[in-house]
Amino acid sequence: MIEDSEMSNALLPIGFCDLLPSDAEAEACVVKWMMDAFADYGYERVSPPLLEFEQSLLSHAGSGIADQTFRVMDPETHYMMGLRPDITPQIARIAATRLINSPRPLRLSYAGACVLVSGAKHNASRQILQAGIELIGIDSPQADAEIITITAEALASAGVSSMSFDLMMPQLANSIIQTEEFSEHQRKGLLRALDRKDVAAVQHYAGNLADTLTTMLQAAGPADRAIEILQGLDLPLEAQQILERLLTSVKAVQAHNPELQLTIDPVEFRGWNYHTGLCFAVYVPGISGEVGKGGRYLSNNGEPACGLTLRPDLLLPLIDFDQYSRQRVFVPFGHTIEELRGLRKDGYILIMGLKADENITEEAHRLKCSFIYKNKELQPVSV
Amino acid sequence: MIEDSEMSNALLPIGFCDLLPSDAEAEACVVKWMMDAFADYGYERVSPPLLEFEQSLLSHAGSGIADQTFRVMDPETHYMMGLRPDITPQIARIAATRLINSPRPLRLSYAGACVLVSGAKHNASRQILQAGIELIGIDSPQADAEIITITAEALASAGVSSMSFDLMMPQLANSIIQTEEFSEHQRKGLLRALDRKDVAAVQHYAGNLADTLTTMLQAAGPADRAIEILQGLDLPLEAQQILERLLTSVKAVQAHNPELQLTIDPVEFRGWNYHTGLCFAVYVPGISGEVGKGGRYLSNNGEPACGLTLRPDLLLPLIDFDQYSRQRVFVPFGHTIEELRGLRKDGYILIMGLKADENITEEAHRLKCSFIYKNKELQPVSV
Repeated sequence: MIEDSEMSNALLPIGFCDLLPSDAEAEACVVKWMMDAFADYGYERVSPPLLEFEQSLLSHAGSGIADQTFRVMDPETHYMMGLRPDITPQIARIAATRLINSPRPLRLSYAGACVLVSGAKHNASRQILQAGIELIGIDSPQADAEIITITAEALASAGVSSMSFDLMMPQLANSIIQTEEFSEHQRKGLLRALDRKDVAAVQHYAGNLADTLTTMLQAAGPADRAIEILQGLDLPLEAQQILERLLTSVKAVQAHNPELQLTIDPVEFRGWNYHTGLCFAVYVPGISGEVGKGGRYLSNNGEPACGLTLRPDLLLPLIDFDQYSRQRVFVPFGHTIEELRGLRKDGYILIMGLKADENITEEAHRLKCSFIYKNKELQPVSV
Repeated sequence: MIEDSEMSNALLPIGFCDLLPSDAEAEACVVKWMMDAFADYGYERVSPPLLEFEQSLLSHAGSGIADQTFRVMDPETHYMMGLRPDITPQIARIAATRLINSPRPLRLSYAGACVLVSGAKHNASRQILQAGIELIGIDSPQADAEIITITAEALASAGVSSMSFDLMMPQLANSIIQTEEFSEHQRKGLLRALDRKDVAAVQHYAGNLADTLTTMLQAAGPADRAIEILQGLDLPLEAQQILERLLTSVKAVQAHNPELQLTIDPVEFRGWNYHTGLCFAVYVPGISGEVGKGGRYLSNNGEPACGLTLRPDLLLPLIDFDQYSRQRVFVPFGHTIEELRGLRKDGYILIMGLKADENITEEAHRLKCSFIYKNKELQPVSV
């Protein structure tokens, strides 16, 4: 609890913030750059509402986000509405309803704010910004690869020069574990050990699978090396098929973009609630935590789908926004907007003087202008 | 109440909607065009959160919006948070706190979604989009005029060719009425009559003021004619001063943009809760209701401020967005993103084929492409 005396009007709830100039402008630009890149590859923008009935918001792909959803009652219907903590389930709903008759594969993009009941950790954002794409109606390694490569293009368009995609197959570990009969105690211990990447504990609990699972744990890292190690394993049929799909998806990505840094985490399985195939997390040097995540899932009507959501808000520290700053011109009182159209077209920011009797040089300087508009010309502000 | 059987997952609460392609794209463009125009005149973007403590959201300029605000409890502090129905009060808060030391006049812009508990009328939107500007720290007719002329520029940038600004002085009617001693019954009847623009009722209740108030009612309309009529009235001193300010503001607007259509509604006073001077409503032919409103008020720390909020979401029916649609190119399976950079730079939308064995012409046609990329060239799709 915070004290009333601390509740100044400037105080925002933890995890919510004001973006000030020029961060707010930079964020809008990052979103635009990403959305433009998505549009270049045929991803068409949709914009679902901030609130919808919880019954639709939290069904299907949305079932994993119920505990992160603020609810309010709709006074019209007395049904509960949820404030979206994630946009992907809304896109799945739109694809399965309003756009059910649009040609497949359906390529959709979106950008917007989401609100979480509690941040990922103390002090973490509870209002987040998502921008992403979904490719709906096709299940293939090429579709997986398109999502990854186009997301990489979008990050590059936003000025991110270095990134890495971590690939996971949440079903892989389970397809191996289920071939052995474990006690409930052993099974839980093994899953916890895998989750913690605790080699000693894995060996303790894994029985006959100890070598295989340890090798898989140790294979985590750059994709090419991981694939080589994983291919050397003697895996049960289902696991082989899952691995084969991972390999062809990696090859399809590399065909598009051989430079893209790919890593594989073969035993990762936690936190992927509704995913049915390849999953990815995107990392960018200098930013802690993932700047994007996504994967393959089934859309509301059972259609295969794959998508990835970026977090443009997390990228702000990386964006060198000053390079886009423009020259400011002080326009003394008495000029009309009409006569300044040329300057505006030339890219200057126009600061209109509002008083007849002010010291023009002082005002121009105070308002951070580099030029004064005088005698129909730009004169540098003498400091 | 709606029946459970009607609650299909596609159903959204009344007043909330999905924007589909290309409406979602068009809306994002309209916002960008407006924000770019605001930026050209030195209005710098800020972005307050969707939720904040109700104590700060609903104080000062926000006090009039309490009944339109959804609340949820912050599990961290057990304080109530409000989902903003309006952004202006948040800008006033930012100006009075985080930007208290920024040079005045402070020019801020914003764009974002707001949520209302109930729509203006049945079926009206409960999620609305606002884009606006605030000019803080100066009280003058030139400041009023800057807000009006720059909003007009922003609408023009968004492709709106015809618009009209309706100007009001909510204090004017009261400054006249208060000079007479009315019974409570008479006074209420008079206010209701003025609100309804009911000339007969105004004459019934207005006593000695009947002629003045009737003339004012009938003066409503184009600014130049209204001013001529209002100047012929014998008004009490306070009303004269209010009228004088209106006149100089109108002249200041006309100096910037003599073509701008201005109307005056001299007895309008309802619905302007926190305003202290000139108020405006913006109308655009073909759109029912106002596409923007705003006016002069006192910011949280008592600073003079003037602002105007546009509703880009209402303008979509007017925007001829097809003129910005781009040619779509079907790129058969087997090409990489790398080799297509030139086409992307040239402005084509690239639709990547995801299967090796598909009928290329059929696919291109089905996915609405005008061209196929073949032998490193664009070939028109034969229909």
